[in-house]
Amino acid sequence: MTDLDRVLATVDADLDGALERLFAFLRIPSISTDRAYAADCRRAGQWLVDDLAGLGLTATLNDTPGHPVVTGISQLGTGKRVLFYGHYDVQPVDPLELWENPPFEPKIIEGPNGVKRIVARGSSDDKGQVMTFVEACRAYLKVTGTLPVDVTIMVEGEEENGSGNLPPFLEAHREELAADIALVCDTSMWNATTPAITVSLRGLMHDEIVVTCANRDLHSGYYGGAAANPLHVLSTIIGAVHGPDGRITIPGFYDGVVEPPDEVKAQWNALGLTPEVFLGPIGLSQPIGERGRSLVEMTTSRPTFEVNGMWGGYIGEGSKTVIPSIATAKISCRLVAGQNPVHVRDAVRAFVRSLIPADCTVEFRGGEGSPAVAVSHDNPNLAKASAALGDEWGKPAVTVGAGGSIPIVGHFKKTLDQDTLLIGFALDDDRIHSPNEKYDLASFHKGIRSWVRVLAALAA
Amino acid sequence: MTDLDRVLATVDADLDGALERLFAFLRIPSISTDRAYAADCRRAGQWLVDDLAGLGLTATLNDTPGHPVVTGISQLGTGKRVLFYGHYDVQPVDPLELWENPPFEPKIIEGPNGVKRIVARGSSDDKGQVMTFVEACRAYLKVTGTLPVDVTIMVEGEEENGSGNLPPFLEAHREELAADIALVCDTSMWNATTPAITVSLRGLMHDEIVVTCANRDLHSGYYGGAAANPLHVLSTIIGAVHGPDGRITIPGFYDGVVEPPDEVKAQWNALGLTPEVFLGPIGLSQPIGERGRSLVEMTTSRPTFEVNGMWGGYIGEGSKTVIPSIATAKISCRLVAGQNPVHVRDAVRAFVRSLIPADCTVEFRGGEGSPAVAVSHDNPNLAKASAALGDEWGKPAVTVGAGGSIPIVGHFKKTLDQDTLLIGFALDDDRIHSPNEKYDLASFHKGIRSWVRVLAALAA
Repeated sequence: MTDLDRVLATVDADLDGALERLFAFLRIPSISTDRAYAADCRRAGQWLVDDLAGLGLTATLNDTPGHPVVTGISQLGTGKRVLFYGHYDVQPVDPLELWENPPFEPKIIEGPNGVKRIVARGSSDDKGQVMTFVEACRAYLKVTGTLPVDVTIMVEGEEENGSGNLPPFLEAHREELAADIALVCDTSMWNATTPAITVSLRGLMHDEIVVTCANRDLHSGYYGGAAANPLHVLSTIIGAVHGPDGRITIPGFYDGVVEPPDEVKAQWNALGLTPEVFLGPIGLSQPIGERGRSLVEMTTSRPTFEVNGMWGGYIGEGSKTVIPSIATAKISCRLVAGQNPVHVRDAVRAFVRSLIPADCTVEFRGGEGSPAVAVSHDNPNLAKASAALGDEWGKPAVTVGAGGSIPIVGHFKKTLDQDTLLIGFALDDDRIHSPNEKYDLASFHKGIRSWVRVLAALAA
Repeated sequence: MTDLDRVLATVDADLDGALERLFAFLRIPSISTDRAYAADCRRAGQWLVDDLAGLGLTATLNDTPGHPVVTGISQLGTGKRVLFYGHYDVQPVDPLELWENPPFEPKIIEGPNGVKRIVARGSSDDKGQVMTFVEACRAYLKVTGTLPVDVTIMVEGEEENGSGNLPPFLEAHREELAADIALVCDTSMWNATTPAITVSLRGLMHDEIVVTCANRDLHSGYYGGAAANPLHVLSTIIGAVHGPDGRITIPGFYDGVVEPPDEVKAQWNALGLTPEVFLGPIGLSQPIGERGRSLVEMTTSRPTFEVNGMWGGYIGEGSKTVIPSIATAKISCRLVAGQNPVHVRDAVRAFVRSLIPADCTVEFRGGEGSPAVAVSHDNPNLAKASAALGDEWGKPAVTVGAGGSIPIVGHFKKTLDQDTLLIGFALDDDRIHSPNEKYDLASFHKGIRSWVRVLAALAA
């Protein structure tokens, strides 16, 4: 029997103990957005510090201007180190009356088809997921007295409240937090039987476009037919952004965009994600992205141009025959690997300017951006983690991208210059942020086993 | 010396008396929008009734649910009758501190270049203009004991407040108000030396377009690139309404549009209205209407499509990365002679529907419309009035259209089946609705003389 087998067997044997610890953690109502729970947040952090200290880690409750950050650091001299990130704070629980069980009284409840679920606020997001990693370390330390790789566990208490104090914390603890790779356990599997590693997050550039024509609002009877209307100008511009093939027509917009390797695209195609499954629940049936691209590409590896808000003229009840002076659009672009936010901003602005009639003016307000974050598809840690997950789940982990941003990953890259693998065991039906949040018992159990395998694989 | 000459001489000789009467009328603060002035409105109406009764007309203060309507009717058996319309109510006066002279203490003030001006609220809009007609009748009756044509003078007290009670009044007094032609004195000259007769008013069709895509607002990271955005859909539609030549591309939109006769267009071209003069003051320089059309055509004899207001998504401070579910535009079309509002509405809706993607839906709210109102260019009364004004001003009256609507003219057509000639002597710099409203003494004096000539001409 190998060390690995013995560690896995210990995980299985100690599942009740692991659940007991998780339940103790879940009973602390660490709602970070409500100041009334500040002491509870601190208590949750301290609970975790005590638990990590019990494992022999150097565990600290680090004060911040907000809720404290927990760190637990091993010094085993393994020659390799991973930085693990999670959060101990949870979302508010209202509407409380929709909970079938009190949110901070965790319980195992049998769901459809006899599936056992841990039901409580934070069970999935993110206390349950944090403890999969902690329990994996515990089992390893118990069986072998050491870990395959050294770990720096960092668990914050403000993720649900914007993580405002985390970037300065990273900045101040750069050397202490140095590692070979960061691991985040705050995401989902592809589905209940298919593990997933998220390796890229789209970036974002947002801007506000303000078009002005006449120097005041005009009477549409007197001036209508002669005077320029900024809503027409802005609409014409927005209408010109996408071609009939779904491509963005802005010159230079796609500069530098990196295509994923063919084998990754093949993997995505094999997932068979259909419009019916992805768009059906939101009342749509037809993807509007670039022709010839899969839904996975459209939403993760391809950039977008989106109008998030637009307004001008009279927007009250009834009608008013006015030609407005000003029209405004808030736009944002999701960016992918290889795109420079400043270049994209400038390309968008040049495109808009090129369509502004001589008489009208345009002003831009915003233009902030952050690039996409992506782990190279040939990063060796990715292959190792993927194989380890495959061993546990019986099928290879899929390598996916997230369409939105997870700010911590950008901070790891920017401040610590660390790549991140996001490996999580949540499921889409976990109802995170909603009443009756749950985490399948299998997610917890096999999550711990998965981390055991990943830790072993990363050491190799 | 002809009757006409003697009447004109009497007008000249009695100018001080006419001013005295006008000033008495102007001193009554008949602000119709403010209930605090309800008694003053009634007093202004009664003042006019007394004045008309003094001329020998059957004068009545007709109660309505709002302010009363004044009527004064002659029964001279001339065989022809005109219906004259004006209003005795005035706009509020605030901001009062901007008035150089109290608004209800009329005064003759010398303006630039020694031009004498009657300064008071209502001097131009519309008490001064109403009295040009009344004084013309007075002079005729004094000199000849009769009038060239019978008159039905109707002066309402709610024009500045929407004229809500006038349509039912017209309906209830259809027979009493029957006439051969209606005359309205509430408009401007083309400029200080060029009289104008307004013979057409554009109609209006307004509608609200509501485009819905997904069944809820979406996260632009998760769905962006795949899910339809109603702001893009609506912008694309609005952007497609006008062609690069300024023409409206909606199939059927121009159906039935009547082209004015070449001689009328020639007259408009001779006016030499430039973009500098018309658009300069509002900060524009380039007309956006159909290529090859003059500014006068664009704003009076050609129909328009205008977005009056548009909105969707997040329109607050900062940014929000949402793909909205709904986007809305309030649109209106100015209509010209020959266009049917229902046909235009249906054409617009069909055009919009043709551009709605399969997944999205569109709903329309509104669609109310009123047709343009136009006197035929070969109406004999028009030629007579035009010649009479030419005699007074030394140059022919120009025949123009108004770009907006003047609801009373539509009501005269619809309820009384009467054509209307709008003949006014106001100037564009009269500051109606603003502090220091004025009416040039020459506007008043030559206005009275003009009506004397028009009344004589209409009898012929």
